[in-house]
Amino acid sequence: MAKSDLASMPCSIARSLEVVGEWWTILVLRDVFRGIRRFDAIQRDLGIATNVLTARLKRLRDAGLIDRRRYEQRPPRYEYHLTDKGRDLFPLLIALVRWGDKYLAGADGPPRTLVHLTCGHTTEPKLVCSHCEGEIVARNTRYVTHEEAAELANPEARAG
Amino acid sequence: MAKSDLASMPCSIARSLEVVGEWWTILVLRDVFRGIRRFDAIQRDLGIATNVLTARLKRLRDAGLIDRRRYEQRPPRYEYHLTDKGRDLFPLLIALVRWGDKYLAGADGPPRTLVHLTCGHTTEPKLVCSHCEGEIVARNTRYVTHEEAAELANPEARAG
Repeated sequence: MAKSDLASMPCSIARSLEVVGEWWTILVLRDVFRGIRRFDAIQRDLGIATNVLTARLKRLRDAGLIDRRRYEQRPPRYEYHLTDKGRDLFPLLIALVRWGDKYLAGADGPPRTLVHLTCGHTTEPKLVCSHCEGEIVARNTRYVTHEEAAELANPEARAG
Repeated sequence: MAKSDLASMPCSIARSLEVVGEWWTILVLRDVFRGIRRFDAIQRDLGIATNVLTARLKRLRDAGLIDRRRYEQRPPRYEYHLTDKGRDLFPLLIALVRWGDKYLAGADGPPRTLVHLTCGHTTEPKLVCSHCEGEIVARNTRYVTHEEAAELANPEARAG
């Protein structure tokens, strides 16, 4: 299957991967989330060539994940900021952080930690249901068609 | 930066991407999450060649994300099941689902929906803090070193 077929699959996972399914996409977004916004700083952090980073930032802008703001006129220099669409990828980064912390941290333990500024504590974010606030885990959740969802919500209709 | 350098970066996001940063990894995991466990069924669902799927399943097994169980002796046939390590990638899939539903669903709307079996309702999972149960969003969360986390937890130490 060609990568370009992803977008045509009737699945939001596949469609999202079409946009963010390359590892560098996430690393550039990670830097901007962390407040590393200027071209030179991102380049230094990722250790990639100027032309490569230029092309990647353009693709992220074309996808509507970041925009740029000029902070110096001569020579023109830009800062990169997340759009709402880009910022909404935050849970994806959280998922990668949590999994990497758990399985790939090695003997030194996780290199960084998440802090919830609202309460000031380090946090291990968990997913909860928007309806009942109960925890969302693989075993208690199904990703189904709308017809199947209606059956699950009304077991009697299913039996009948 | 070569992809092989990802694992050496002191960042759980980069390390996770080293393991799951290829789009096909996620799509195979998605199928197994959805209960599509048998080689033939996964192959049919993804539309990929036998040798390609064989290689990918082997890499997922080598990474410890899935294991296989023989369900037929002659000829030997296998089902694939998530390990705990693989199942813990569930929040990553949820993040992709939610983002794709919001930004890439098009005029037809999201193709599938998430159902929380515990309450029976369709759900829009959200992240909450393990400490205060408040919502976790980009603007109220920082991904920092342990020293910075200590400062954030104790603002007076920082001022002093």
